[in-house]
Amino acid sequence: MKTLIIVAHPQRNESVTQTFFRDSLANLDNVTWHPIEPQFDVKEERQLLISNDRIILQFPLYWYSAPALMKKWIDDVFGDTFALAPEFVMEDRELGLVVTTASAGDDFGAGKPEQFTMSEILRPFEAMAKKVKMKYLAPFVVHQFGYQTEEQHEQLLTDYQQYATNSDFQDFSGQTKWFLAQLKNKMNKLDNEYDIIMVQSLYDQLESGQDELKDLQWTLSMIKNAGEDKNGNNGLD
Amino acid sequence: MKTLIIVAHPQRNESVTQTFFRDSLANLDNVTWHPIEPQFDVKEERQLLISNDRIILQFPLYWYSAPALMKKWIDDVFGDTFALAPEFVMEDRELGLVVTTASAGDDFGAGKPEQFTMSEILRPFEAMAKKVKMKYLAPFVVHQFGYQTEEQHEQLLTDYQQYATNSDFQDFSGQTKWFLAQLKNKMNKLDNEYDIIMVQSLYDQLESGQDELKDLQWTLSMIKNAGEDKNGNNGLD
Repeated sequence: MKTLIIVAHPQRNESVTQTFFRDSLANLDNVTWHPIEPQFDVKEERQLLISNDRIILQFPLYWYSAPALMKKWIDDVFGDTFALAPEFVMEDRELGLVVTTASAGDDFGAGKPEQFTMSEILRPFEAMAKKVKMKYLAPFVVHQFGYQTEEQHEQLLTDYQQYATNSDFQDFSGQTKWFLAQLKNKMNKLDNEYDIIMVQSLYDQLESGQDELKDLQWTLSMIKNAGEDKNGNNGLD
Repeated sequence: MKTLIIVAHPQRNESVTQTFFRDSLANLDNVTWHPIEPQFDVKEERQLLISNDRIILQFPLYWYSAPALMKKWIDDVFGDTFALAPEFVMEDRELGLVVTTASAGDDFGAGKPEQFTMSEILRPFEAMAKKVKMKYLAPFVVHQFGYQTEEQHEQLLTDYQQYATNSDFQDFSGQTKWFLAQLKNKMNKLDNEYDIIMVQSLYDQLESGQDELKDLQWTLSMIKNAGEDKNGNNGLD
């Protein structure tokens, strides 16, 4: 799977969040970090689109939508002859969104300060995906990056890496397979024998324990669901 | 009430719909037709905003949202210091939307080609209005203008005029009052005695028949609702 991440951030180089995301992809294969500049070549952009399988639009939420720069890219590149042509060149490719917000996750939803859920606010993108027959991925929303703890950032890092490169990121066994592939990749790059043994041992444990992990995951999700029922929601959507 | 209509249409001068709307406002007072150019002065735009009571954003739906030009205007003019400043300069002003679409009204909604209703697709604007404490007006959506009949265009014309200039356009007695004011205005501009008598007679009939009209309107709405119940919806939303 090849992934294209289209980044539109008016202050991209000064954005701590965007820098964090870019750096987290440094050691991953088959993923292209592609910031939009105010001037772009529509033909080149379309060529990039069709040479990738997962297209991710990444932007900060400005007035409940993409910044103007991202919208210009969509209007010009998707156009009304390219993405809607009878052959539907975008068909079956995936459309992901990485959206950062300045508001807290808890602020979104009926009766809350932001009134709507992020799922609702991002409906125009979901409608767009349907129109061009792309598969719409669950949006990856990051609230208040700057207020997150070091631990939350670590979790965010692997979650983001998977959103970018794991074809099966929403499924537990897909996640385990992805981790195994990452470890294998890491092993191949090591030259210290002790490190290799350590990583190999971790790999073996993870691989042989997959069934056990699945059971554990199921139990955890039951406990988690019970907790969420009490609160009415999980604060994210 | 003073109204500002902010028009963003990439091919504004060639758009039959936008020309129709602009011409329909020719004889109305207190309404400013304000097309956005790619270059605009943020300070001037803000000054325009605060000197009006009803702000209407008017645009064709591009990929389920405003065209990039309109989004740029929103990002720059609303900014994050102006519309969100503690004094909430936009507070209690009205936010209206006039949105034209190439798809048929019947195509919008769950299980239909466009998947979502226009109300859902326009949520980002509703969220924006709430954020800056503006009153969100029911969006004025025009589907497939080019396919409409002459009769539909005539109806559209007065509906649009009211959306632009009637402070109470959703209420029947507000609509009647608006029509009376229009007639009075027309009378004052006439100089042919015969015409004056005709319009005066129409005015008197309309004014004296207001209660009767209200009853009629109520009966009609009952009949209409019964019809809509059968179809499940009215095709607009």
